[in-house]
Amino acid sequence: MLTKNDIKLIKNLRTKKHRILNGMFIVEGRKSIIDFIDSGYSLVKLFSVNEHFNNLNSLKLSYFDLKKISHLKNPDDHLAIFKIRNSKKINEKKLIIGLEKINDPGNLGTIIRTCDWFGIKDIICSQNSVDCYNSKVVQSSMGSLSRVNVTYLDLKEYLKSKSFIKSATFLDGKSIYESEISLSSGIILFGNEANGISSEIEKIIDKKITIPRFNNSKYPESLNLASSVSIILSEILRNS
Amino acid sequence: MLTKNDIKLIKNLRTKKHRILNGMFIVEGRKSIIDFIDSGYSLVKLFSVNEHFNNLNSLKLSYFDLKKISHLKNPDDHLAIFKIRNSKKINEKKLIIGLEKINDPGNLGTIIRTCDWFGIKDIICSQNSVDCYNSKVVQSSMGSLSRVNVTYLDLKEYLKSKSFIKSATFLDGKSIYESEISLSSGIILFGNEANGISSEIEKIIDKKITIPRFNNSKYPESLNLASSVSIILSEILRNS
Repeated sequence: MLTKNDIKLIKNLRTKKHRILNGMFIVEGRKSIIDFIDSGYSLVKLFSVNEHFNNLNSLKLSYFDLKKISHLKNPDDHLAIFKIRNSKKINEKKLIIGLEKINDPGNLGTIIRTCDWFGIKDIICSQNSVDCYNSKVVQSSMGSLSRVNVTYLDLKEYLKSKSFIKSATFLDGKSIYESEISLSSGIILFGNEANGISSEIEKIIDKKITIPRFNNSKYPESLNLASSVSIILSEILRNS
Repeated sequence: MLTKNDIKLIKNLRTKKHRILNGMFIVEGRKSIIDFIDSGYSLVKLFSVNEHFNNLNSLKLSYFDLKKISHLKNPDDHLAIFKIRNSKKINEKKLIIGLEKINDPGNLGTIIRTCDWFGIKDIICSQNSVDCYNSKVVQSSMGSLSRVNVTYLDLKEYLKSKSFIKSATFLDGKSIYESEISLSSGIILFGNEANGISSEIEKIIDKKITIPRFNNSKYPESLNLASSVSIILSEILRNS
């Protein structure tokens, strides 16, 4: 049974404020829900159009009711509420991906999925970045958020306190195909979708890298952020 | 002045049916509008919150009115109606990107932008793919749609009639880092977001390629489609 309180809670969990207040977030879709359970996330409540969900206790609801509470246009048959988990300690012996003021939830979700694919365990985000428990991030990460550790921190202070190599993408950096970027540790930073890396962070960077354009023109001005992360991770890992 | 007919037309142009009926589509944002003009697209009407737009005749409207007609949540100050242009002849001497039943408009827009970056001039799509003049595609292509030729065709019949090398991405193909994929011509095909390449198309393929996973697990099941295209184009171009 779907109670009024459930409906209210699930609707509220669309906003970061209420996710923090309640310490909970929403996951939709069978595969993703299983990923979060397998990764040890604590399940608060599970709603299913179909009663059977891997021997878990699920509350049955109609598809009509699911449509009312779902954050998706075309909801899958299952919706779960999980507890938000504290970030784990960052493993600084391995390569880290850093994101400054990432804005677009679809980009962050895709980057989390790509990091998972390439074995990157840690993503750090500046505090003004989009929340990784935003339902669009959860959705586009396709379950990978359950396996990749995302930490929000004061990026400038964090970077200043660390001695590892700090690379960052710029439009005028050294070509990733020419410079030696087969890093097994350190951090690679990516800036905001519209404005790139801030001048504040630029000052702390050791190495500027770029993905060269192959078309003899000055357009497009840039690549999509998630595409850039994919290309750079592929280039690093192919050389590893 | 924004007339009732303008409002009706712009709202209608959200659907493919009306884009085809009218032979028009919408572009929003100063940069993208300039890109389409520079690429020779025929401007039908231009609406601006600010009267000055590169010496073009624009119809002034209030931001309130723009919000009413915009396809975006946070509209830029300018909205244009352009005529749809027929696809150009496909240049089969150069590398082509092929997409089977691509569904997500954000993915198609990002792929168009990535192709533009890497100098790919032609994308072909199966007829059941999302329409490239869909406003989310136009938006996420960031103007690149004006420079990349997107052709919709019967993919199976087209591929069967051509003798160039046909590669396609599969989860069990040969690693792109090991196989020789420094192609300057031929086609690379990518399948639908959820189901990959169909068995019908698989039969016509010469070469199966894959982006290897680097994490010793079987998750995530796949990469985002636009990320896969980015990685493969980077790998081809770096070797060119």
